[in-house]
Amino acid sequence: MDKTFNAFLQKLDTTISNLYQKDFLLTWEKTYGELETILTIAEAFKYLRDHNISTRCFDSGLAISQFRDNSTRTRFSFASAANLLGLAVQDLDEGKSQISHGETVRETSAMISFLSDIIGIRDDMFLGAGNTYMREVGVALDEAFADGVLPQRPGIINLQCDIDHPTQSMADLLHLKTQFRSLEDLKGKKIAMTWAYSPSYGKPLSVPQGIIGLMTRFGMQVDLAYPEGYELIPEVIEQAGKQAGESGGSFRVVNSMEEAFRNADIIYPKSWAPFQVMQRRTDLLRNNDHDGLKGLEQECLANNARFKNWECTEEKMKLTREGKALYLHCLPADISGISCGEGEVTASVFERYRIPLYKQAGFKPYIIAAMMLANRFEKSADVLKKLATDHVKRMI
Amino acid sequence: MDKTFNAFLQKLDTTISNLYQKDFLLTWEKTYGELETILTIAEAFKYLRDHNISTRCFDSGLAISQFRDNSTRTRFSFASAANLLGLAVQDLDEGKSQISHGETVRETSAMISFLSDIIGIRDDMFLGAGNTYMREVGVALDEAFADGVLPQRPGIINLQCDIDHPTQSMADLLHLKTQFRSLEDLKGKKIAMTWAYSPSYGKPLSVPQGIIGLMTRFGMQVDLAYPEGYELIPEVIEQAGKQAGESGGSFRVVNSMEEAFRNADIIYPKSWAPFQVMQRRTDLLRNNDHDGLKGLEQECLANNARFKNWECTEEKMKLTREGKALYLHCLPADISGISCGEGEVTASVFERYRIPLYKQAGFKPYIIAAMMLANRFEKSADVLKKLATDHVKRMI
Amino acid sequence: MDKTFNAFLQKLDTTISNLYQKDFLLTWEKTYGELETILTIAEAFKYLRDHNISTRCFDSGLAISQFRDNSTRTRFSFASAANLLGLAVQDLDEGKSQISHGETVRETSAMISFLSDIIGIRDDMFLGAGNTYMREVGVALDEAFADGVLPQRPGIINLQCDIDHPTQSMADLLHLKTQFRSLEDLKGKKIAMTWAYSPSYGKPLSVPQGIIGLMTRFGMQVDLAYPEGYELIPEVIEQAGKQAGESGGSFRVVNSMEEAFRNADIIYPKSWAPFQVMQRRTDLLRNNDHDGLKGLEQECLANNARFKNWECTEEKMKLTREGKALYLHCLPADISGISCGEGEVTASVFERYRIPLYKQAGFKPYIIAAMMLANRFEKSADVLKKLATDHVKRMI
Repeated sequence: MDKTFNAFLQKLDTTISNLYQKDFLLTWEKTYGELETILTIAEAFKYLRDHNISTRCFDSGLAISQFRDNSTRTRFSFASAANLLGLAVQDLDEGKSQISHGETVRETSAMISFLSDIIGIRDDMFLGAGNTYMREVGVALDEAFADGVLPQRPGIINLQCDIDHPTQSMADLLHLKTQFRSLEDLKGKKIAMTWAYSPSYGKPLSVPQGIIGLMTRFGMQVDLAYPEGYELIPEVIEQAGKQAGESGGSFRVVNSMEEAFRNADIIYPKSWAPFQVMQRRTDLLRNNDHDGLKGLEQECLANNARFKNWECTEEKMKLTREGKALYLHCLPADISGISCGEGEVTASVFERYRIPLYKQAGFKPYIIAAMMLANRFEKSADVLKKLATDHVKRMI
Repeated sequence: MDKTFNAFLQKLDTTISNLYQKDFLLTWEKTYGELETILTIAEAFKYLRDHNISTRCFDSGLAISQFRDNSTRTRFSFASAANLLGLAVQDLDEGKSQISHGETVRETSAMISFLSDIIGIRDDMFLGAGNTYMREVGVALDEAFADGVLPQRPGIINLQCDIDHPTQSMADLLHLKTQFRSLEDLKGKKIAMTWAYSPSYGKPLSVPQGIIGLMTRFGMQVDLAYPEGYELIPEVIEQAGKQAGESGGSFRVVNSMEEAFRNADIIYPKSWAPFQVMQRRTDLLRNNDHDGLKGLEQECLANNARFKNWECTEEKMKLTREGKALYLHCLPADISGISCGEGEVTASVFERYRIPLYKQAGFKPYIIAAMMLANRFEKSADVLKKLATDHVKRMI
Repeated sequence: MDKTFNAFLQKLDTTISNLYQKDFLLTWEKTYGELETILTIAEAFKYLRDHNISTRCFDSGLAISQFRDNSTRTRFSFASAANLLGLAVQDLDEGKSQISHGETVRETSAMISFLSDIIGIRDDMFLGAGNTYMREVGVALDEAFADGVLPQRPGIINLQCDIDHPTQSMADLLHLKTQFRSLEDLKGKKIAMTWAYSPSYGKPLSVPQGIIGLMTRFGMQVDLAYPEGYELIPEVIEQAGKQAGESGGSFRVVNSMEEAFRNADIIYPKSWAPFQVMQRRTDLLRNNDHDGLKGLEQECLANNARFKNWECTEEKMKLTREGKALYLHCLPADISGISCGEGEVTASVFERYRIPLYKQAGFKPYIIAAMMLANRFEKSADVLKKLATDHVKRMI
């Protein structure tokens, strides 16, 4: 074991965290030390993998995934994370199950969990429902474990809900840590989380909410920018404000992309649907009101079209710190002239930041693996140390 | 190795069974000793798992699943069992395959089996077809192995067919063994397998048939109850009667839920469609006769509705032995007021037995794992002993 | 290690090949030595597996599959190969991903590859598109690796494209090697790759093209036969001719099944759609022109029907060398009276060759495993030697 890896272990040993057997549902439910712990485990996993050292800490075991919405990045990240630890992925495809038969969440949760270690859930379609569903599953698992139905209580990882997208925001944070050297170095940096125009509608709120809910923890100056009417969930706004105060940073909402970009060190231009629209959409989806949904889509696209100038252009980039702010996106972005006519970002800006963006995405498997490890093992540092000491080669 | 585990090994060593390289298609094709062996291996697997001892006996290998009907419990149980043994699951999804191109069962069976160890099949939609299909696959595999096409002959496990549901009934039996201390203690106990009202139709016959086909082996008093017209397949009825006589138990058909419940130690109220309806449904499905199917559904639901009083209520429960019969169900149950308006069981009865019911379901992964092990290894006891001796940790 | 296995290692040590970190897209891009190497590794893998020696050279890792068309054989072969090496399969199902959102190939390729070792792709629907797509993925992976986005550059294996079907043709070749003792013994043998009647249309060209593109490498007399109008891609025809000259064999196109069969040692009667039809079909598919597609299908089926006499019959078999040519097919075949009314081959011919045909198919998992190994490890012989020396049992 070299110095770098030992530093990870020492960091873990000296950081107070209580992640063992705790679900990861919202970053703002975790302490600063716990967030640090996840980042450090992720870095340690990456180190081991990069040195061809096996990271398997399970000889057998299952990681259940439940995707209630399409996914490429997160699906592959989850599968990669499970594989890193030695878990096999079993997908709960509701279309192929008997869940539609009126089965309760309580029952399904127990039924899929007899030999499961981790359950990853994406549920971001219905406002007020996704995170709630995860907690319902959690309560069901608690009960089933307490009742002796389950031999262990599987951990739940939020793979995106209506409120937060913690595996994304934590991967983003690890990217920032890597780019700016340390979490401490983020202090005082300005980040602009801003709405951007997209020719589609109904994009979830979880990314902007996840970003303001996480980045306000680190003493950053967080600007949230959107055209009037594109509000986020009020509770998250409040949480972000509170955290900014506590961490010695700032949080404000502005209605100008330019103002948010001004002197920003980091920018995150990304489309979303207004909170109120998502609520109406949720009601329409629940009622299977196809005409209503079509009408809402038309209305929203028309409204979006009023804000086509909310595009991340070279001109706007010049407003940022030395014209060189780090551009972030959760991907895939709506790139003007590439993936759509007019979109969130011009091709030249996107292309200049493409490589760091892809590296940003590359942290996600390690973040998820870290969440899995911290949930399943009381002493993550001991497991990592053993892996490094045993030094089994990943490839012969 | 402690006493408990040693007792399992001794039991296996002293029980005559011939499960090696034999498919598991119907419980009544297996000897008493073979059924005991499956239960014992399942218990031994559970013991190892509960003690964090790896149960992997395959370094690599495949378990194929083919689900011709929806499944949650069995799908996850099969995946869990495969994972316990170290096998990867590969699903044969006929929709994504070329099977529709008129390919023969003989050919497909060989093509998916070159490196496969186990094939699990659910095929319960067509009366007269599911079990037959499994045997066709079996003959194809026999031939392919004899011809040198396959290096080994994969074992087939019936994950539910039109006749039997052996992974379910064996899990139920292990539950009974656990609740009543031993198979011997089941002697003389009364079990009521009874039809119950459901607002849906077309439920398979495999569970009630599986239960009467298995429980009549153990000297129990088996009452099968249903409203006139809800007959099961005659051959299974005959088999159950024969077995009851041989085992020193009894088997009778009654047309009253109350009569079956009277002094019962165990009750299993569960809806099914009449045998004759399933035959008509099979013909209509084969002819893609949607109007005919709709008509049949209406007719059957109307008929079902005449028997809404076939509900497992607190009042009926009082008829059972000391009012405390053990309530069984394969799940999901139609719970009145919870998963449907009026159903198989009232919420208060279900809720009182929910925890043991979930435990009952929790045996299924171990039962399937036991069927896999017994099929693949000549001496299961030796494998289990080696696993315990090697004592590889499942979690580091 | 016994003599047989040592011979494999010696063969590998004395054969010059450069397969490490090279995609396997077309057999004619590989040297003779490289083709030999793949065959030898496949044989060595089969040897180890048949002797219950674990072939796992990965402790963890992912093999990505992307099937843009239905598949049974290749899907299971790919899964089996991945499992042999210790890789978990993760399927990229475009329907469940966000790829439709206009995401670029460059981006998706990177996003699925952070922890991936191998990517297998089937893309055979669009003429001019499948192989091109694989190369686009390859370029994207090269870039992402060069840019530091990916820690390693996953290897790509062509699981069938519009031009070639190398895992099929190489499995066919291993079958021929086994049947005729050695590659050298194939010299001078006559193989007839001929069109045959089928009551379906739109069958890909990759098999006939793959066969003439591969078998002309070994000094064989390769006859390609089809009714006028059923041309293959001109570039492949040209390549086949060139290779036949270089290898001391011959290549010619004839318009008579009988002529091709005459004195043939090996025959491969298999339907395909004319090259020009595939081009028109590609345009129609791209334009979602359902009426156009229906019209084209009618036109082609009518045209096919003119050539129902292009059937492999017992009578035609008599024309072959001593009436005993080896019959090949990639399966599933259109067997007259079995899988269709009139088809590519009569039941009696097919049945006589069924067992060797199934054995032929059984080589595919090993061929794919060999392609994976050669791509991932610089010295395949060393890995195989270590596997044999470590001698871990596949089944305990």
